[in-house]
Amino acid sequence: MLCGRTTRRVCSGSNVTKAKWRYKKNARSVSTTDSLAEKLTEEFAINLKRHLEENRYTNADKAFKLILEKLDADTRVDALQYFRGIHAVTEAFTDVPGANKHENQRILAALNDILSQAHSECSTASEPVKIAVTGACGNIGYALIFRIASGQLLGPNIPVQLHLHDVPAAEQALLGISMELEDCAFPLLRGVKTFTNPESAFEDVDYALLAGSKPRGKSMERKDLLRGNATIFLEQGKALNKSAKKSVKILVVGNPANTNCLVLKSNAPNIPSKNFTCMTRLDHNRALYQIAKKAQVNIHDIQNMAVWGNHSSTQYPNINHVLINGTPATEVIKDPDWAVKEFIPTIQQRGASIILARGASSAASAASAIIDHMRSWVYGTRGEWTSMGVISNGEYGVTPGICYSYPVVASGGQYEIVKDLQIDPFSAECLEKTHKELLEERDAIADLLS
Amino acid sequence: MLCGRTTRRVCSGSNVTKAKWRYKKNARSVSTTDSLAEKLTEEFAINLKRHLEENRYTNADKAFKLILEKLDADTRVDALQYFRGIHAVTEAFTDVPGANKHENQRILAALNDILSQAHSECSTASEPVKIAVTGACGNIGYALIFRIASGQLLGPNIPVQLHLHDVPAAEQALLGISMELEDCAFPLLRGVKTFTNPESAFEDVDYALLAGSKPRGKSMERKDLLRGNATIFLEQGKALNKSAKKSVKILVVGNPANTNCLVLKSNAPNIPSKNFTCMTRLDHNRALYQIAKKAQVNIHDIQNMAVWGNHSSTQYPNINHVLINGTPATEVIKDPDWAVKEFIPTIQQRGASIILARGASSAASAASAIIDHMRSWVYGTRGEWTSMGVISNGEYGVTPGICYSYPVVASGGQYEIVKDLQIDPFSAECLEKTHKELLEERDAIADLLS
Repeated sequence: MLCGRTTRRVCSGSNVTKAKWRYKKNARSVSTTDSLAEKLTEEFAINLKRHLEENRYTNADKAFKLILEKLDADTRVDALQYFRGIHAVTEAFTDVPGANKHENQRILAALNDILSQAHSECSTASEPVKIAVTGACGNIGYALIFRIASGQLLGPNIPVQLHLHDVPAAEQALLGISMELEDCAFPLLRGVKTFTNPESAFEDVDYALLAGSKPRGKSMERKDLLRGNATIFLEQGKALNKSAKKSVKILVVGNPANTNCLVLKSNAPNIPSKNFTCMTRLDHNRALYQIAKKAQVNIHDIQNMAVWGNHSSTQYPNINHVLINGTPATEVIKDPDWAVKEFIPTIQQRGASIILARGASSAASAASAIIDHMRSWVYGTRGEWTSMGVISNGEYGVTPGICYSYPVVASGGQYEIVKDLQIDPFSAECLEKTHKELLEERDAIADLLS
Repeated sequence: MLCGRTTRRVCSGSNVTKAKWRYKKNARSVSTTDSLAEKLTEEFAINLKRHLEENRYTNADKAFKLILEKLDADTRVDALQYFRGIHAVTEAFTDVPGANKHENQRILAALNDILSQAHSECSTASEPVKIAVTGACGNIGYALIFRIASGQLLGPNIPVQLHLHDVPAAEQALLGISMELEDCAFPLLRGVKTFTNPESAFEDVDYALLAGSKPRGKSMERKDLLRGNATIFLEQGKALNKSAKKSVKILVVGNPANTNCLVLKSNAPNIPSKNFTCMTRLDHNRALYQIAKKAQVNIHDIQNMAVWGNHSSTQYPNINHVLINGTPATEVIKDPDWAVKEFIPTIQQRGASIILARGASSAASAASAIIDHMRSWVYGTRGEWTSMGVISNGEYGVTPGICYSYPVVASGGQYEIVKDLQIDPFSAECLEKTHKELLEERDAIADLLS
């Protein structure tokens, strides 16, 4: 819609000629120095113009490719800057009357691709970022690792090195995964190391994604599950403290995620508290989808969703602050009972519903939420809210020091809890209920906290 | 290396001030009309300049975000064009002396991200591309589907609709996968439909990725495997013929992939032969990695790899034409026996080695190769070679009509077999051996070809 309106303004009716002229002017105006790159870019612009006139844009990517091939390594990087400018201009042509919109979008994506590829080729010399993943051989790990290695976590410009960790019994499986990673020939993957010892796995890492935990066995008491995992995370906390970068960003996914995160932080005093998070992004994403479905809108149309508290069935997914295209969700969804009777229980019980449907717990969707959580943290949320379990400083009456999920905004690699929200009596009750559960979990493993 | 050299030329020594000026000039020169967008962009440029001076670029993404927030929907699209131009210029600053290179790269990626996100927000109105995946509940399907839905197949601008197909026994699992897809809140995913009937699954699809096939059971004869699968692909060919778009691009992954593809094509006469391919990209990628490892180079440094013939242990991965940074691989790898004694058998047996290591066949690496195969086909290879199983027209002495893997280049949505390559006697023998196997496979299912 937006694209359509704008480009029609540029190109409508007899303005096509004007638009073409403008395009050409623009293609020149992005030049700053006389260089081979500029000359070639101009040649490209002329080619492109011809293609636009004759073939309605169909061969723009061919022209683009041809020009890139003519460049040697030195001029290529220069040229990329000009190409980016041209790319911006060519975009205005996606809606030239009579043009095939889908085809044009395909070409734009192809141009984008060329830019990304060329850009990532430019950065082969930089040091890779080190990312540790625990539980690497589990279902979440398997769904996650290949997405990281393909560039989806840090983007197409940043080479990565993976430190894969799992229990000693999984040593053979670790080998299998690293072989499969080799077989993908990922251009950004600068190495894979496998570990069964957490201290070595975390050595010098920039990011630690802790997907591994002890699953709940049959006839296992909840308390045993808590303690079994707390022991693991105690060891991993000490290991992080000893060997990771002090600036390491940590995400705990293995359940019980909040309390595992608490144990981890408590045993890693050298790392700032704000670097420890646990994942409620899967709950957050689930909530976004349910709202989008109910209101018949796209995911992008929804803002200010918040998941509070524990990543468990006591969590509180709260739509009170949600805006749908700027209008409060409570006004758009004309069904006052929906939130309490359908939405909240659906989100709280979604993990169990998935297990029922799949015969296995969420894996690919959890991995996807890990990517989302980390991207939001590292690259920012552009003013939008997301949900993260973070170490509380007492915000909204929560006991300081425990790991509690809040709505947050992030930018510059730092998150901030959204402040001064109005909490109605029902919400206050929900916040307290999940808070109380977290205090009980903490008390059950209190002897393992430092 | 490249980036470093170029940006040093722009910014070296006392030229920093000049570079900053140039940056500002450039930020203006990309403007074409007087508009709010231009005004805001200029404001952004001033902000950015201040940030560059004070914080060495650290808050550039913050400034970028602020300006985007100020824009309403109408001006946002306009502004994006200017932002792209600015983005190109800011890139010149990643290597300002004393700057934190990693931090700057992170910010550049963040800017890229904002552009992608904003761009994808602009395209919400366009029709989604329909992609069918068979064997959706298998391990390859599970590793593939979420990558497609996240935008990795067609890029961040193109909304997709998934048609997931599997056998009736997997109906519950199909439901589970579609629930997990919902839970990811993928902004580009415009719908998921599940099917156990191929004719409905293929209705009106733009792409068909056939990952499903009958696995080899214990004590099953090779011939039974061939015939069992040929029956499935006969049915799917008829279904594609009846209900898919005539322009559908088809990739067969399920084994025996080449002969399954032959059966498929033979039963879908309405769809052009060139739209049928089978996957040897996993073999190709495996070969790239082994070469990179042997020559101690990056994947990007390798060109002109070729996998010939059948996706089986008779395949011929050929390094005779491979260039490593422009030098023949045979000159770089000073080990004349390596190709025949190590490289070829490693690639030919890699599938079996993975099964041995993992206790399961390749899944995530196969899914990754599917993404690569389709991206190369749809968006082109920029003059580089890749390997694809395609319906032969007799190139290199192959029997016309069978599905044989060749080195190909692709652009504009079309692939072309690389022609006029010199084939030495050893290679000719290898090409013939795998050719012969494909003829035998064809003969075993000849009664199922139309």
